[in-house]
Amino acid sequence: MSEETLKRILENFRRYIRQDQKFLLRDLLHTFHPADVASILSHMDEEEVGYLFELLEPEVASEVLREMDEDARKRLLRRLDPERLSEVVGRMESDDAVEVISELPQEVASEVLREMAPKASEEVRELLQHREDTAGRLMAVEVVAVHQDDTVDQAIAAIRKAVDEMGEFYYVYVVDDAGRLVGVLPLARLLVSRSDRKVSEIMKRDVVSVPEDMDQEEVAQIFRKYDLVAVPVVDEEGRLIGRITVDDVMEVLEEETSEDIGRMAGTDEAIREEAVWKIAGARFPWILTSLVSGLISGSIIGAFRGTIGRFLPIVVFIPIITAMGGNIGLQSASITVRGLALGKIDTFELWRRVLREAKVGIMMGIFCGGTVGLVAAIWNENPIFGIVVGVAMLGAILVAATMGTLVPILFRKLGVDPAIAAGPFITMSNDITGLAIYLGIATSMMKWLVE
Amino acid sequence: MSEETLKRILENFRRYIRQDQKFLLRDLLHTFHPADVASILSHMDEEEVGYLFELLEPEVASEVLREMDEDARKRLLRRLDPERLSEVVGRMESDDAVEVISELPQEVASEVLREMAPKASEEVRELLQHREDTAGRLMAVEVVAVHQDDTVDQAIAAIRKAVDEMGEFYYVYVVDDAGRLVGVLPLARLLVSRSDRKVSEIMKRDVVSVPEDMDQEEVAQIFRKYDLVAVPVVDEEGRLIGRITVDDVMEVLEEETSEDIGRMAGTDEAIREEAVWKIAGARFPWILTSLVSGLISGSIIGAFRGTIGRFLPIVVFIPIITAMGGNIGLQSASITVRGLALGKIDTFELWRRVLREAKVGIMMGIFCGGTVGLVAAIWNENPIFGIVVGVAMLGAILVAATMGTLVPILFRKLGVDPAIAAGPFITMSNDITGLAIYLGIATSMMKWLVE
Repeated sequence: MSEETLKRILENFRRYIRQDQKFLLRDLLHTFHPADVASILSHMDEEEVGYLFELLEPEVASEVLREMDEDARKRLLRRLDPERLSEVVGRMESDDAVEVISELPQEVASEVLREMAPKASEEVRELLQHREDTAGRLMAVEVVAVHQDDTVDQAIAAIRKAVDEMGEFYYVYVVDDAGRLVGVLPLARLLVSRSDRKVSEIMKRDVVSVPEDMDQEEVAQIFRKYDLVAVPVVDEEGRLIGRITVDDVMEVLEEETSEDIGRMAGTDEAIREEAVWKIAGARFPWILTSLVSGLISGSIIGAFRGTIGRFLPIVVFIPIITAMGGNIGLQSASITVRGLALGKIDTFELWRRVLREAKVGIMMGIFCGGTVGLVAAIWNENPIFGIVVGVAMLGAILVAATMGTLVPILFRKLGVDPAIAAGPFITMSNDITGLAIYLGIATSMMKWLVE
Repeated sequence: MSEETLKRILENFRRYIRQDQKFLLRDLLHTFHPADVASILSHMDEEEVGYLFELLEPEVASEVLREMDEDARKRLLRRLDPERLSEVVGRMESDDAVEVISELPQEVASEVLREMAPKASEEVRELLQHREDTAGRLMAVEVVAVHQDDTVDQAIAAIRKAVDEMGEFYYVYVVDDAGRLVGVLPLARLLVSRSDRKVSEIMKRDVVSVPEDMDQEEVAQIFRKYDLVAVPVVDEEGRLIGRITVDDVMEVLEEETSEDIGRMAGTDEAIREEAVWKIAGARFPWILTSLVSGLISGSIIGAFRGTIGRFLPIVVFIPIITAMGGNIGLQSASITVRGLALGKIDTFELWRRVLREAKVGIMMGIFCGGTVGLVAAIWNENPIFGIVVGVAMLGAILVAATMGTLVPILFRKLGVDPAIAAGPFITMSNDITGLAIYLGIATSMMKWLVE
């Protein structure tokens, strides 16, 4: 949908809402794909969303709810009564139902679960036992599974039953007597096999599966690595307990990268918030770190006030030295964070990485130090000052590049998210070391500087 | 594969390579999934990769090559002779073959195409006509298509043929006499339908398809929005010409987000490079912008040298004012860039967004300005100086937050990648405005400041 189209659709919907044209709106809503309805709703205010959502058939409503952004959905959920909710959630597959229910306040969630059909409610309760951000929490329990001794005909009968109950699926999983996963049947293989053949004869035996407690980020990496569209989930004994589909994993990937970008700038939570004071609050820790770091930088400058007073041009190059240190540190950190996230950098390569980045730092330091040193020498007609500025710049850049690589890898080793490290921590240490190097060198060279 | 396992595998492989244990290595390599072989190779040097790749069966070699990172693959491709290459590439599906061939130098590519089977070579040549980063360039021509008047039995016969030729597939597409796409058949539906039924009676008619010239980022958004595992590609007349699968799209998503992060820090290209001087080179434009920006900041300070000389404590707060402006600008920009990328922000909301961000800026500005102003007043026992610093801080933060939101959206409107804007441009403008505001206020307040 182009922005132009969307804009026109929104205008029309708003007009019909004002005219309270319920029947027209109901028909209109049902001509769109549920995903389109979700994106239309994401542009309307709470009042409008509540009004339109009431008009949807339960089946469509459940699809729309599934497709909505987490924040838009949360706002809508607050408006819906438990009865309507359980009607809508009851039509979802178990993984989607879990996602929605986990977003509800405790009491509402309990009420919705009570109103739902006992079997569905039981499934959701069990899935909710799994720790958040694990494979078990991401999976749906709806799988098509057959026994390895079944025939192709029996497998097709199982599919016939599943087609009515489930959405789309692409694999039939094969289990043994104990329910352990032993193979997988791509549907195309079933289609071209004789009906009396045994499943175990035509199944693929090397099936990629994930344990229920695997972290969701790792699950996403497995999808990416092996180019999967769905993966079966197994428990400790290797028994098939569910499956994860690629659409859920794409959401995870989006989330994780957004988080990485957000954490580097301290905006992780802020992206999801709507209220102004909440946005400000979410960005606050990072801002506070910067404030403290800025005050420390200020104290360093204050400590060197004597030096600066004796040779004022020093001030002119303070911003460029801290800025270059900060920028190069940020570059090194963003390369490292992405490399770690994409699995291109392993922590055991630590020193190789740091060494390489230090070399890059030296090259850039020589170039930048040379240029800025030259400018300083010419502006002030003082070659010694040029050397002071140039050497300080080289030092600041070298430290920044090294720290920018070292800190994220060390944080990963310690089990802390490298993206957090990459933001405030590195900026702070670079500002401080850059200033200390610059003003330290200037002080020690003072007698040549002002002779 | 855990890091520990990978490390051990690498050690063993290296030992066997030194001992030239070709047979052992060949057997070992073929016990791994091709994706695992690719990730093992990504940790070895060029020499080792060349040695091991030679040992692979052509079928496995083509899978491994497909799974390798673009940069690792490029290095390997340089070592392979055209004969081996055409043997390996000839076994790939058309989309993968196109990807590999487009990475080759012109002459090698032509030679490989000449050596390949005429039909495969023709397909690749046609795909290469499509503009890079479009649906046509991403798609494979291998599709299973049946005519709408065919029966289920005939459709199954078509699948039987395709199973041998193609990798996995999940849909059969349905076309009319003119080859136009009219529907889709999920395999599960075929499995449960009577064999004499007509395809047109059981197919799904509302099929999401993409035009051949659609941008790949838009294609990825469609996959995400409609939760697809594959999408058919059509030409201008609506004729079916290929299909894109979700694994290719996940690569696009990864690339695009990496690019976004990378562009904000000017490290987009640097992430892919290996040689030290190339990494430095790729980061250079950003560094140059920072240098220029730093020198402009320096000139501003130079211009206000008189003011600074009259009241030296001004210097102490220069870093904190530029740093806070820079940080808050970066936060606003990263929120905006992510919002645009995820489709949560539309450009027609420009003023609403800017206004909201300005409000956040005012809140944070009042807090930070208040705190730092207080510190300045106490450190220097000069309340006027506290007011100067506080007001300058508020002004700098407000400008930074507004610019950080405005610039990426304006860039998107102008068709420029907002992520590029978010980096150097915003930092530069924030440093300069922050300094000008601070030193301007200080100058105009000078008579009260030093009385």
